Amino acid sequence: MKQKLRIGLVGSGFMGRTHALGFRAVGGVFDLPLEPSLELLADISQEAAETAASRFGFARATGDWQALVADPAVDVVDITAPNKLHAPIALAALALGKPVYCEKPLAPTAEDAFAMVQAAERAGVVTQVGFNYICNPILALAREMIEAGELGQIWGFRGIHAEDFMIDRRTPWTWRLDPAGGAGAIADIGSHIIGIARFLLGPIAALAADVETVIGERPLPGQPDARRAVAVDDQARLLVRFARGCRGTIETSWLSSGRQMQLEFEVIGEKGALVFSQERFNELRYYKVEPDRSRNGFRTILAGPEHPPYGAFCIAGGHQIGFNDLKVIEIRNFLAALAGGPKPFADFREAYEVQRVIDAALLSGREERWVRL
Amino acid sequence: MKQKLRIGLVGSGFMGRTHALGFRAVGGVFDLPLEPSLELLADISQEAAETAASRFGFARATGDWQALVADPAVDVVDITAPNKLHAPIALAALALGKPVYCEKPLAPTAEDAFAMVQAAERAGVVTQVGFNYICNPILALAREMIEAGELGQIWGFRGIHAEDFMIDRRTPWTWRLDPAGGAGAIADIGSHIIGIARFLLGPIAALAADVETVIGERPLPGQPDARRAVAVDDQARLLVRFARGCRGTIETSWLSSGRQMQLEFEVIGEKGALVFSQERFNELRYYKVEPDRSRNGFRTILAGPEHPPYGAFCIAGGHQIGFNDLKVIEIRNFLAALAGGPKPFADFREAYEVQRVIDAALLSGREERWVRL
Amino acid sequence: MKQKLRIGLVGSGFMGRTHALGFRAVGGVFDLPLEPSLELLADISQEAAETAASRFGFARATGDWQALVADPAVDVVDITAPNKLHAPIALAALALGKPVYCEKPLAPTAEDAFAMVQAAERAGVVTQVGFNYICNPILALAREMIEAGELGQIWGFRGIHAEDFMIDRRTPWTWRLDPAGGAGAIADIGSHIIGIARFLLGPIAALAADVETVIGERPLPGQPDARRAVAVDDQARLLVRFARGCRGTIETSWLSSGRQMQLEFEVIGEKGALVFSQERFNELRYYKVEPDRSRNGFRTILAGPEHPPYGAFCIAGGHQIGFNDLKVIEIRNFLAALAGGPKPFADFREAYEVQRVIDAALLSGREERWVRL
Amino acid sequence: MKQKLRIGLVGSGFMGRTHALGFRAVGGVFDLPLEPSLELLADISQEAAETAASRFGFARATGDWQALVADPAVDVVDITAPNKLHAPIALAALALGKPVYCEKPLAPTAEDAFAMVQAAERAGVVTQVGFNYICNPILALAREMIEAGELGQIWGFRGIHAEDFMIDRRTPWTWRLDPAGGAGAIADIGSHIIGIARFLLGPIAALAADVETVIGERPLPGQPDARRAVAVDDQARLLVRFARGCRGTIETSWLSSGRQMQLEFEVIGEKGALVFSQERFNELRYYKVEPDRSRNGFRTILAGPEHPPYGAFCIAGGHQIGFNDLKVIEIRNFLAALAGGPKPFADFREAYEVQRVIDAALLSGREERWVRL
Repeated sequence: MKQKLRIGLVGSGFMGRTHALGFRAVGGVFDLPLEPSLELLADISQEAAETAASRFGFARATGDWQALVADPAVDVVDITAPNKLHAPIALAALALGKPVYCEKPLAPTAEDAFAMVQAAERAGVVTQVGFNYICNPILALAREMIEAGELGQIWGFRGIHAEDFMIDRRTPWTWRLDPAGGAGAIADIGSHIIGIARFLLGPIAALAADVETVIGERPLPGQPDARRAVAVDDQARLLVRFARGCRGTIETSWLSSGRQMQLEFEVIGEKGALVFSQERFNELRYYKVEPDRSRNGFRTILAGPEHPPYGAFCIAGGHQIGFNDLKVIEIRNFLAALAGGPKPFADFREAYEVQRVIDAALLSGREERWVRL
Repeated sequence: MKQKLRIGLVGSGFMGRTHALGFRAVGGVFDLPLEPSLELLADISQEAAETAASRFGFARATGDWQALVADPAVDVVDITAPNKLHAPIALAALALGKPVYCEKPLAPTAEDAFAMVQAAERAGVVTQVGFNYICNPILALAREMIEAGELGQIWGFRGIHAEDFMIDRRTPWTWRLDPAGGAGAIADIGSHIIGIARFLLGPIAALAADVETVIGERPLPGQPDARRAVAVDDQARLLVRFARGCRGTIETSWLSSGRQMQLEFEVIGEKGALVFSQERFNELRYYKVEPDRSRNGFRTILAGPEHPPYGAFCIAGGHQIGFNDLKVIEIRNFLAALAGGPKPFADFREAYEVQRVIDAALLSGREERWVRL
Repeated sequence: MKQKLRIGLVGSGFMGRTHALGFRAVGGVFDLPLEPSLELLADISQEAAETAASRFGFARATGDWQALVADPAVDVVDITAPNKLHAPIALAALALGKPVYCEKPLAPTAEDAFAMVQAAERAGVVTQVGFNYICNPILALAREMIEAGELGQIWGFRGIHAEDFMIDRRTPWTWRLDPAGGAGAIADIGSHIIGIARFLLGPIAALAADVETVIGERPLPGQPDARRAVAVDDQARLLVRFARGCRGTIETSWLSSGRQMQLEFEVIGEKGALVFSQERFNELRYYKVEPDRSRNGFRTILAGPEHPPYGAFCIAGGHQIGFNDLKVIEIRNFLAALAGGPKPFADFREAYEVQRVIDAALLSGREERWVRL
Repeated sequence: MKQKLRIGLVGSGFMGRTHALGFRAVGGVFDLPLEPSLELLADISQEAAETAASRFGFARATGDWQALVADPAVDVVDITAPNKLHAPIALAALALGKPVYCEKPLAPTAEDAFAMVQAAERAGVVTQVGFNYICNPILALAREMIEAGELGQIWGFRGIHAEDFMIDRRTPWTWRLDPAGGAGAIADIGSHIIGIARFLLGPIAALAADVETVIGERPLPGQPDARRAVAVDDQARLLVRFARGCRGTIETSWLSSGRQMQLEFEVIGEKGALVFSQERFNELRYYKVEPDRSRNGFRTILAGPEHPPYGAFCIAGGHQIGFNDLKVIEIRNFLAALAGGPKPFADFREAYEVQRVIDAALLSGREERWVRL
C-alpha cells in the first residue's frame, strides 16, 4: 500500500492548475512509493478557493494560506501564489519543517530569496522550484552526453529565451513590469535559459550584460489614455564565462515578434555539438565529429524510451510528450526526493543561484562593466 | 455536483494504461458534467487484473471480462483487449445497452466489425474507437480550414504512415502478423492515415493498391532457428479517389528505416495547401495563395489556444501538447457525447468504413485492379 | 593547347541561354581536354538569332537551323528549340555524324523519340538529353550509396515532382497543353522524377497510374473570354515496381499550390534511408540503421568537396552550388564523353526509356489497369 | 558594341579562380555596357602565372604584380593576393587612377586600411571589396523590407558566423594565425556577419566583446612535434549597439563543430522578424505580425525572380543560385559602377568601417570594457 502525501496548494492560476494536473497524473505515469492526494487549496478568498478546489479536485478549500500551512493534514506546501508571497509562505512552511514546492522565481529580491535558501537548508527538507524545462528527457540526454565527454571539451554555449507576448505597445501595465520585482524579461523567461545553462554546464563565473527597456511606458489596465513608466528590462543580452572555462552568450526578450517559445541553445564541443529548441522539445540535433564528412551532418534525435523517463509516458519513440508532462516529471522528482531519492536539481539553492546571475546581469547593465559572481 | 461515470476497462497493456491515464486526467483538463471513476478492471486472470488495478488506480479487479460487462456498477465498457476479443466484449456490452469505447481496429474481420456496427446502431448508444491522432487540435484546424473553403477546391491528397519497428528480419513472428487478422501494416498503422484522410476529405470512392509482403518469414519467438511464413502486408501503396472528386495517394509501411512516426499528409487546394507531420504534431505548415509571391511561402503555424481544445491544456502557444493529451481529448469527446453532446467522429460506423477501405485495398492488391467502394 | 569544340546552338529561350552560360563557364570550372567555342546560333529568324548571338556571345548567327546543322564549322549541335523540332534537327545532325545535345523531352511522340534513338545508335556518336537534376553531386552520392549497398536491400521509393505554375485558371492555353505533345505535367516535370528514379534504382517494370485533367479548359492567350479544352494531364500518380524488385510511388502535378520545386524523393532500404528535396538540393538527409537509437536520427549532409564534382566549384563545403551549375556539370559530362570518357547517363536511349514510362502511365490511366513495360 | 574592360588579376588561389569564373560568366548573365576581358594574370612567378592564366583563360601572364599594375592594357586591378600585399598593390593602382577590386580583408592593419581608403577617395575611382554574401538577392530583399518599414521599428539583431575548419588541434599553424594580421576568426569570417549587420542596420556605435584563443598552440606545418603559440582569436562574442538605436549580438568562431557555413542572422522588429542562414541562402524566413495568430507563423520565402537580380540567373523560383553566382552579382555591381551606376555597397570605405568594428572588438576584449566607435 502506498503512503499518502497530502498536498496543500496555494494559488489557482495557470500554474496552480498545471500543478494540480500533475499531481493527479503522476501516480499513473510513475510507480512511486508516495501517492499524492489533493488535500487543501488556498486562494485569495474562501469562495475563490472553493471554486478552484472543486474544479481541480481538492478535498478542502480555504481563503487563508496561513491556515493551509499550519493544517496538520497538509504534508507539503505547494506555492503558485503571486511572487511576493513566495517568501512568507515558504518561510512559514519551512518553520514547520514542511517540504516546499514553489513556482519560479523564488522571490522578487535577492534578500528574500537568500532567506528562503537559508531557512530551507536549516530545515533540511526537500525543496523544489518550478524550472520544468530542465525536466525534459532530451535535456537529460544532453547533460549526460556532456558529462560523459561525448562532446569533448566544451568550447561554447549559445542560449536564448525569447517570446513575443509583450510586443504590442497597447498591452497594459502588469505586475510583470513592477520595478519592485527588480527585473522583467530576464527574470520572467530569461531565468529558464540561465537555469538550463547551469544545468548543462555548471556555474557562471562572470558576465557582461546589455539590458534595455524598449517600450518605456504602458497604458494602465482599463485606462488606455493613462500611462505608467516601465522600469524593468524588455531585453537582455549577456556575455557569459562559465566556471568550467568555456564561454558563451545568453539572450532574452519578450519583444521577439513571432516567437512563442524560442527557448533554444547550442552547446559546442571539440568532439560534437548539440542544438535544441523548446518549440520542438522532443528533438535534439546532434553533430558527432568524425573523420569522414561525406556521410556526416547534424542528426535529429527523436525522444523515445531510450531517453528516460520518456518511456513512462509512452513505449514508442516519436510520439512526443507535452508541456504538462514536463510538470509531471518535475513532480515525480519532488516525490522521489521525499521518498529518499536524490534531491531535485532545481531546489531553493539552485533557484537562488539563478537569481544571482540575474542580479549580476542587471548590475552589469547599469554599470556597463563585467561582473564576477 | 458532477455525475460519476463508472468505467470498466478490459485489458491492461500499453493502451489500457494510456486509457487509464486519460480517464484520470480528463476531469482536471476539461470542465465536464461527467466525472469518470475507475471502477473495475478485467484482465486475463484475477491476479493480473489486481496488479494492474492497483497500478492504474482502479477500485476493483476481475479475471472475467464477462463479469465486468455484466457488473451493474460499470456504466461504460472500455476495450483494450487483444483484437479478436473486441467483438464478443462489445456485443455483450451493447446487448446490455452500455456505451462502448474500443481500441482500434474494430475487429479482425469485416463480418465481426459489421456485426458490431449493427449492434451499436440498434442499441443507440455512444461508441468510440481509438483513432486518437484525429483528436489533435491542429487537425481540427486543418479540417476547419478545408470546410470553410480556405484552401478552395481540393486538388490532391498525399498521405503516409510509415514506421520502422519491423525492419529487423530477426524480429520474431507476432500476433501482428497473424493472417487471421487479415492485414498487417495497413491495418496496424495505415488505418490512421486512412482515418485522417476521411476525417479531412470524406469517403474514398475507389482505389488501386499495391500490397506487398517484403520479409516472407520470421523466426518464431524464442526459437530463432524456426521460421514461420508471413502472409500479411509489410507495405501498401494506394491510389485513391475521394467521393468529393479529388484524388491522391496513401502509403503505409512498417519497414521504413529511421521513421518512428511518419504519419504525414499534404492537402493541396486551389487557394492554399497544408502539410503535416505527426513527428511535429503541434505544427501545421500552411501556404496561402496570394498575388504577391515576393513575401510569401509556407508558414509554420504553432498550436496554441487559438486552436481548441489546446487551451484546455495550456494558456500559451508553442508549449505543445503530447501524445497522451490526444487520448485525453479523445476521452473528452466520448464523455461529452455521453452527456448529450455530438457523437465522436470515430464511432463504430467510422471505424468500419476505415476497415472497408483496408479490405478494398487488399482485394485490389490481390487482383491488381481498381476497386470501387 | 586545348582542342576547340565549336558549338552550334538552336534556340535562344530560357534553356538556350542556360546552355550558353554553361558553355561559357565549363572551361573555367573543369580542366577539360576540349574547350567549347560559341560558334553559331540559329533562331526563328536571322534577326532574332543575331540579337541572341550578341547577347550570349556567339560568333555567328543564322535564321536557318538546317544551315547550322550543315555548317562545317559546327562540331556539335545543341538543340533547345521547341519540342516538335527536336526530331528533325537531331536526325539531320546525326545523319552527318555530329554529336547532339538536346533538351528534354526527346520528342513529343514515342515514334519520333525512337527514331532519334535508332539514328543515334547507328551514328555511334555521343548524345545527351538535358536531365540536369541528375547531375547534382548529392544525387551522385545517393546513387553511390545505393550501389555500394550502404542502404542494404532497397524496400521502397517515394518520388514527386510538383510545382504550381499552372494553378491559376486564368493562365492561358499554351503549347504545354497541346495534346499533340501527348502529355502534360507528367512529361513537362514528371519526367525529372522518373529519370531520377531510374538513375537511382534502375528500370521500372510495371506501373498503375491515375492521370487527371483538373482544369478542363483554359482561356486563349489574349482572349480571356474564349476558351479551349485541355486534354493533357495536370496531375498523375503512379504505383511503380522496379525491375530490381522494390516498389514505390511517383507523383507529379503542376497544380500544387505553394510548390516551386518540390522535386523530392525518399529511398528506403534495410540498412538506411535517404530523403532529398530539390528546394534544398545541396543537402541529403540520411538515416543509418544502428543498434543504439539513443543518439541516432536522420542527419543532414551538406554538399562539399567530398562529393565530386562539387569541389570544382568551391573548395569549401556548405557554400552551395546553384541551378546553373548543374547545367555546367551536365555540359562537362557531355564534353568528357566527346573526349573519350564514359557516355552521359542521360543519352537518347535513357530519355527514350523515360518516355516509355510516361506512355505506359498514360495508357494505364486511360484503361485503369496495370501496365508492364 | 560593348566596351571592353581589361582585367588584371593578381593571385590565383581559390579566390582568384572564383573571380576569374565570375568575370567569364557575368556578361552572359547580365546585359552590361562593359564586357570584361581577361587580360593579364600575375602570380608569384612567371611560371605559376602562366599555368593559372592558361587554366583560367587569361591572355597573358606575369610574375611581377608591379608590371601588371603599370600595364597600360590593364584597365582595372583585381587583388586576390595574400592579405599583406593588398595595400601596396592597391596603392600602386590607385596612384595610377585605376579602379581596384580587392578581396577582403582590406589590409591586416587599420593603418594600411585607412591609407587605402584615403588613396581611393583621393583617386575618386570605383573600389570594391569582396563581401560577396551581401550580394545575395535574399539579403537585398531583407534590406528592402527593413528600409521600407515592413518590420516596423527594429528591436534586435542576432548574428553569427561560425565554421569548424580549425577544430582539429593537429591542424597546423597557418597565415590565418599570424599575429601580424591582428585578428583571427573575427577577421577571417566574423567580418562577414559584421558587414551584413551594417548592410542591414547601419553603423555600430558601441560594443563590448569577449575574445578568446581556445587552442593556444598549433604544430608547425610539416613538423607535428614542433609547436607555435597562437595569439589570435578563435572565437569572439560581441554585444553591439547600432547607431540607429537597436541592439544585438554578434558571434564568430572557427571552432564550431559541425558548422560549415553558419552565417546566420535574425532581425526582430515591432511588425515582423526575419531569420536567415547562409547554409540555405536561397531562403528567408519571415514573420509578419497580424492580429489573427491562428493561421500565422514564420513563412519560408524561396528566392525567385521577384527578388532581383535572381531572375538574371533563372526565370523560375525555387531553382536556387549558388555561391559562385554571388560573386557574379558582386562583379556585376563593380562593372555597373564603372559604367556610371551607383557605387558598390562594399567599397574601401565600407571595408574599413568593418575593420574598425573588428579593432574595437579586439580592444574591448583586451580591456574588458565597452568601446565606443
